[in-house]
Amino acid sequence: MGVKSILETHPLLSDRVRLSIMGVLASSEEPVSFNELLEALSLSKGNLSTHLKKLEDEKLVEVNKQFVDRKPRTDYVCTLKGREELNNYLEQIQKMLKQTKK
Amino acid sequence: MGVKSILETHPLLSDRVRLSIMGVLASSEEPVSFNELLEALSLSKGNLSTHLKKLEDEKLVEVNKQFVDRKPRTDYVCTLKGREELNNYLEQIQKMLKQTKK
Repeated sequence: MGVKSILETHPLLSDRVRLSIMGVLASSEEPVSFNELLEALSLSKGNLSTHLKKLEDEKLVEVNKQFVDRKPRTDYVCTLKGREELNNYLEQIQKMLKQTKK
Repeated sequence: MGVKSILETHPLLSDRVRLSIMGVLASSEEPVSFNELLEALSLSKGNLSTHLKKLEDEKLVEVNKQFVDRKPRTDYVCTLKGREELNNYLEQIQKMLKQTKK
């Protein structure tokens, strides 16, 4: 039936919120700040932080903390591994789409 | 950034296992038995039952219990709602794939 491959994708991506975070980061050409993510996804700070920490621990995203005009700024980028895992996940889903739509 | 739409898909589908179950059911033209699902997805009985119950409670799948040759047989089908939700989910994913690949 050929959908078993979905079960072999990265487990962290099997969550709407984390998938959306990865989508925002992977489709941006520049680092995205915590506040931009907050606004783009309408999440609570705690919720967003928790998900970002999980993605960071698995090296799917990379964090960069710095001071800009003396204010702390936290930026996130999608790592190469993150992009590969995301594309793999999305492609497996797409394959399934083609099967179920026939 | 346009990936927020993933957050508006059915919450139950944002799980690899449930998504796979739905994929098997939606791509089959006939009802699929519990044992066929078990074999197709290599899950434990308990794990599969738990996910199926959740999908059933949300009317994404329909269950049919009957006796065949005096043996109990439990069949599952994807409901119309389930198919719509699945297609919606997969379409959002497809959009994301286009964005993240550019």
